[in-house]
Amino acid sequence: MNNFFKIKNRMLKAMAASVLLGACGSVFSADDRPNIIVILADDLGYADVGFNNSPDIKTPNLDVLAEKGVKMTSAYAAHAFCGPSRAGLMAGRYPHKFGSQYNLPTSNLSGGLGIPAEETYFSTELQNAGYFTGLIGKWHLGEKAEFHPNNRGFDEFYGFLNGGHHYFPQDFEKRYNEQKARGMNHTIFHYLRPLEHNGKEVKVTQYLTDELSTQATQFIEKADKDNDPFFLFLSYNAPHTPLEATEEDMAQFPHIKDKKRKIYAGMVYALDRGVGQVVETLKKTGQYENTLIVFFSDNGGKPPAGGNNAPLRGRKGDTLEGGFRVPMFFHWPEKIKGGQTYPHIVSALDLYPSFLSLAKVESKKAKKLDGVNVMPAILANKNARPGQSIFAMRHRYGYSDVAIRKDNYKALLFGKNAKWALYDVHNDPAESKDLSKKHPVLLRELVEEGEIWSWQHAEPKWFHIPKEGFDWRELSMPRFHETFSIDGVEQDGGSVTH
Amino acid sequence: MNNFFKIKNRMLKAMAASVLLGACGSVFSADDRPNIIVILADDLGYADVGFNNSPDIKTPNLDVLAEKGVKMTSAYAAHAFCGPSRAGLMAGRYPHKFGSQYNLPTSNLSGGLGIPAEETYFSTELQNAGYFTGLIGKWHLGEKAEFHPNNRGFDEFYGFLNGGHHYFPQDFEKRYNEQKARGMNHTIFHYLRPLEHNGKEVKVTQYLTDELSTQATQFIEKADKDNDPFFLFLSYNAPHTPLEATEEDMAQFPHIKDKKRKIYAGMVYALDRGVGQVVETLKKTGQYENTLIVFFSDNGGKPPAGGNNAPLRGRKGDTLEGGFRVPMFFHWPEKIKGGQTYPHIVSALDLYPSFLSLAKVESKKAKKLDGVNVMPAILANKNARPGQSIFAMRHRYGYSDVAIRKDNYKALLFGKNAKWALYDVHNDPAESKDLSKKHPVLLRELVEEGEIWSWQHAEPKWFHIPKEGFDWRELSMPRFHETFSIDGVEQDGGSVTH
Amino acid sequence: MNNFFKIKNRMLKAMAASVLLGACGSVFSADDRPNIIVILADDLGYADVGFNNSPDIKTPNLDVLAEKGVKMTSAYAAHAFCGPSRAGLMAGRYPHKFGSQYNLPTSNLSGGLGIPAEETYFSTELQNAGYFTGLIGKWHLGEKAEFHPNNRGFDEFYGFLNGGHHYFPQDFEKRYNEQKARGMNHTIFHYLRPLEHNGKEVKVTQYLTDELSTQATQFIEKADKDNDPFFLFLSYNAPHTPLEATEEDMAQFPHIKDKKRKIYAGMVYALDRGVGQVVETLKKTGQYENTLIVFFSDNGGKPPAGGNNAPLRGRKGDTLEGGFRVPMFFHWPEKIKGGQTYPHIVSALDLYPSFLSLAKVESKKAKKLDGVNVMPAILANKNARPGQSIFAMRHRYGYSDVAIRKDNYKALLFGKNAKWALYDVHNDPAESKDLSKKHPVLLRELVEEGEIWSWQHAEPKWFHIPKEGFDWRELSMPRFHETFSIDGVEQDGGSVTH
Repeated sequence: MNNFFKIKNRMLKAMAASVLLGACGSVFSADDRPNIIVILADDLGYADVGFNNSPDIKTPNLDVLAEKGVKMTSAYAAHAFCGPSRAGLMAGRYPHKFGSQYNLPTSNLSGGLGIPAEETYFSTELQNAGYFTGLIGKWHLGEKAEFHPNNRGFDEFYGFLNGGHHYFPQDFEKRYNEQKARGMNHTIFHYLRPLEHNGKEVKVTQYLTDELSTQATQFIEKADKDNDPFFLFLSYNAPHTPLEATEEDMAQFPHIKDKKRKIYAGMVYALDRGVGQVVETLKKTGQYENTLIVFFSDNGGKPPAGGNNAPLRGRKGDTLEGGFRVPMFFHWPEKIKGGQTYPHIVSALDLYPSFLSLAKVESKKAKKLDGVNVMPAILANKNARPGQSIFAMRHRYGYSDVAIRKDNYKALLFGKNAKWALYDVHNDPAESKDLSKKHPVLLRELVEEGEIWSWQHAEPKWFHIPKEGFDWRELSMPRFHETFSIDGVEQDGGSVTH
Repeated sequence: MNNFFKIKNRMLKAMAASVLLGACGSVFSADDRPNIIVILADDLGYADVGFNNSPDIKTPNLDVLAEKGVKMTSAYAAHAFCGPSRAGLMAGRYPHKFGSQYNLPTSNLSGGLGIPAEETYFSTELQNAGYFTGLIGKWHLGEKAEFHPNNRGFDEFYGFLNGGHHYFPQDFEKRYNEQKARGMNHTIFHYLRPLEHNGKEVKVTQYLTDELSTQATQFIEKADKDNDPFFLFLSYNAPHTPLEATEEDMAQFPHIKDKKRKIYAGMVYALDRGVGQVVETLKKTGQYENTLIVFFSDNGGKPPAGGNNAPLRGRKGDTLEGGFRVPMFFHWPEKIKGGQTYPHIVSALDLYPSFLSLAKVESKKAKKLDGVNVMPAILANKNARPGQSIFAMRHRYGYSDVAIRKDNYKALLFGKNAKWALYDVHNDPAESKDLSKKHPVLLRELVEEGEIWSWQHAEPKWFHIPKEGFDWRELSMPRFHETFSIDGVEQDGGSVTH
Repeated sequence: MNNFFKIKNRMLKAMAASVLLGACGSVFSADDRPNIIVILADDLGYADVGFNNSPDIKTPNLDVLAEKGVKMTSAYAAHAFCGPSRAGLMAGRYPHKFGSQYNLPTSNLSGGLGIPAEETYFSTELQNAGYFTGLIGKWHLGEKAEFHPNNRGFDEFYGFLNGGHHYFPQDFEKRYNEQKARGMNHTIFHYLRPLEHNGKEVKVTQYLTDELSTQATQFIEKADKDNDPFFLFLSYNAPHTPLEATEEDMAQFPHIKDKKRKIYAGMVYALDRGVGQVVETLKKTGQYENTLIVFFSDNGGKPPAGGNNAPLRGRKGDTLEGGFRVPMFFHWPEKIKGGQTYPHIVSALDLYPSFLSLAKVESKKAKKLDGVNVMPAILANKNARPGQSIFAMRHRYGYSDVAIRKDNYKALLFGKNAKWALYDVHNDPAESKDLSKKHPVLLRELVEEGEIWSWQHAEPKWFHIPKEGFDWRELSMPRFHETFSIDGVEQDGGSVTH
């Protein structure tokens, strides 16, 4: 898109938005819709931020925002690991419903797979509604033109298309060039490849997290020059492996002895510094008051790679709380009263309808979203979905782990040949007391809801590695007749046939 | 839809229809296209109506219509059980071709599955052609907005979306309220849930069959006030289980000693009474002469639940005649001469093209229908499809039962490890004399046609219960190489490869 | 389509083309885009033409064209057997990507399966660009209206829809009529059925190859009367079985003693005679200079049916060179200098983009083609795809044969439990020296490319026979985790999870 077209396009979008809003003045009249920033950390554990009382990691900038905003203690990612979690976030639907239960294949670099275009992203809806939209950082939802951020709702994209990246440019550039010289072409490990800006290769000069933060501030400055509100998706790959931090950042944590944890802490600290720069830029450009910042992680932390999910059980990938309950806050000076803790369920799936509501657009197509607009409930500190469940499911080798959470309770199936358990995860976040014997009817109802949900799943469109696909077929997955069987619980009406 | 819009919409439809018909007078000029009523019974056996010589059940109103119309003795449902039978009826195509070979999942109450919108229903085509359309009773083709009768061609819907219902409102309301009080929410057995009118819950005050009949008469009266022809789909759930009849109706059958049969008989009697009310209303409103009534059952009767398919072998679910050959008549005073018996094949799949022909619309899209317009053949009492086959297939645990009927003959595969048999079901409806040795070439040809047909099947989009899906995959279904193998019969050209 | 409409349509197309071309004069101004003729042989072996030094078969007319044009020595069909090869040719994409890896079912005569309409054919693009388009001969891509040549880009179709045909009309007519008299209807072996012209049955009076040649000359004469360029797809079924040649043609090969080879040679000779007639007609109508003729075979020869692929290993169906490397030449007096040999890779997949370039149209839709426009490279005798691979894969019983060719090298997996091998097929076309030990990194890279390619495959939409479908499911195909495993080769980055 050349610049002329871009400007024209922007004017048209503004006009469209003004029509949508019923504005009768100039198309350049002030637009009071808030800016929206999503800051997503990668594999950040529940206990790895100051505002969640980390015993060893400090995140001063995040903490200030959390303190001045509302901190969510029961926030959930859309999935317990990366690709599907992001697919769910952007599409506003459980990734299982559109065959995206698995990460894209490792060897997909030019493989042409990605989230189907039928699954509209909220970025596209915000863009259509006149927002200036940008993605900085990690994508992981497909690389071919049709899946590329620039064709999926982002005016600006600076980052990398795959699932992760090395952090030190002097290092990854060198390895990339060596492999290229060996003629490896597209089979070079993608964590080493150059970053891009709207499809054009760029040269990174800083530690990657700092580079992304710098780009984010530049995006905000650029957005300031327009009269449009903006949406920024600042998608850090930190503190995802590879574990690589600067000496300076690690030096902030002299009390940490464990080598991995020390690097991890340094990585988080760099991310936090970036958040500080973002806030600074918002203030400098006068956009601080009317910008909603939503911070969270794409899934739980991974202890062997430095993360800590205490007091939650489990880790990234699990349907235990540690797998997909994540640190989160909403910060918006103009509307959200600070110093609050929001104890009710928030799902990453809720961001789609919530942002649409803020942008004053209705999803025109009859797209059935799985989340709810949580903004009114958050502003009132009420449960946004009383009596409504959220779900998690991760397929394993021949079986599936499942979680169904409703209000304070959670039905859990975890592990091969496991039995269904029930926890009051509001009061017992560590999932230590199984209440299945105490509330069998509730458990049965939750499991039944999970089964109903499972009927809406589509066959996986891909697997992370070919072996998983073979196993899926050989073991006649998804075997939901086993997943959702509860011994000894009578099913009302089950014997009727039609 | 508010009323104003509805009226506008109706006028537009009338105008569209007049353009379609090439009418040059007022758009309110008389429309001589017939009204169409489909009265569908649920699980009604071949021998359970007077006009098919039931030894114990009387159906005086149905019998009069059958007598004054044409009685079909070889009429077939589109499938041997409910959901697929109705899907085939509405879509005019074998349900196997669009992945709807199974009933929707039991636990689908809010599950969001249903017959894909790409499968246009004839109700939509009639509606588009200016017909005023109504569904009274059972749906069973999906509940979400996109699958709902009001979005699938019906201006009016009064009934229930699922596969069946209890009959006594005082009883089902009580049980529903009790379960609701227990907090069961949407997991309440759907046979107990309130009925609805165009999406709004209604309170039923009569025995359900009578309620549906009353609603049908009201629809006809309402339709009378328009100048449009109407299409009414009166979709009784009777005499499907649960077996519940009024004492008065059962008292009509003092000679029946078997408890179940007695209730069943009472249920059929109530249905018959409703048919009488419908006819009465047609006469009263002057629409009797130009209304085509098609009566039939969605599949064969179920003897353990009171049904009787004599002299046919087998029952609901089977590819034996008792599974899907059903009682049927066409009644239309203005065009159809009474007192006739039509011995040729009629399939529920034929209704789509036949009704379109009566409504003088051509299916614009290149929708390939599986039935034929049988109206001219019925009026002439000729075979509507000489030399053309109809098919039935029901998947079982690791194999499939199949029927292929052409003219007088039927190839049958029934039972695990069964061999193909051939019957002259015209002269031997009880399928007692296997003619496979006598007419091996004919059998081979029929089986070959079945195989060709099977290549057009789609993978099932759902299963009734998860276990069926697991079995399907584990047993590598559909295993059609076994289904369509005939030992010792040479296949011309089979060895050529391309 | 009636004639009036056809003429109007043609004028509209010409106008559209002129707009497209930016022409500002009369719509009937000269169009200097070349005519295009594809002459496709069926199962013709690499060594079965004079220009590839056949020791026993003479093809004087083909040889003259090859001599005056450019002869390709590394030309590949899109697949190693018929249906998918043609699907790939027409769609410009590997048939695996749209579920067409198998031939259409044998018993599909009225089965309604075919290549999905979403897969645009280049014939449609040429037609839309104002070309007069014709198919003479074999189709094999579906029979129902939506798949029929006349709905897939061909103004004219004279031939048969299935995968092959008998050659002597007096013989096939007789057998057809006999079977029809037996009431076999549509189960009559399709090799015997009447040919058609745009949907209407025609009576063939000559040996089939001659008939097709005659029709081709008539098409060219008809095209000459228009001002449009034309595209002719002359799709001979010769020398595919059944082995049937005229005595006169066989008499040309007194030196051949083997019965089958003699018939086969006669069949090829008849085809060559047809090519001569085509050239004659081009000359006579003054279109010889500006017509591009591309000649090739849809896959390798089948020695048990008379073919010879020397010096290549393997035969039709194999991923060995003999399976899909085929004789090919491009002939175009106006642009291509004669007497050349082109040693670089050309794939049948390249024809789509190459022809589009010649017709000066851009594929409007974002259709991702798998081939490249080879015209500039051929005119310059340069490698059209340096460093880019082409692929072949054939599924067998529980495993897959694969070939990945890039530049001079080819990675090969052939046979059950085989190991990956590497050949320099430019210098060692017989695949005699395995270089896998010598160039392990190259082999690994090729295999990795194959794996990436495999992720883009779709589940087969059909199988040639039902048994293949059962095997596919029972053996949990495609088992690509086995296909693309190379023992002992480390995968960079393989252990990272996201």
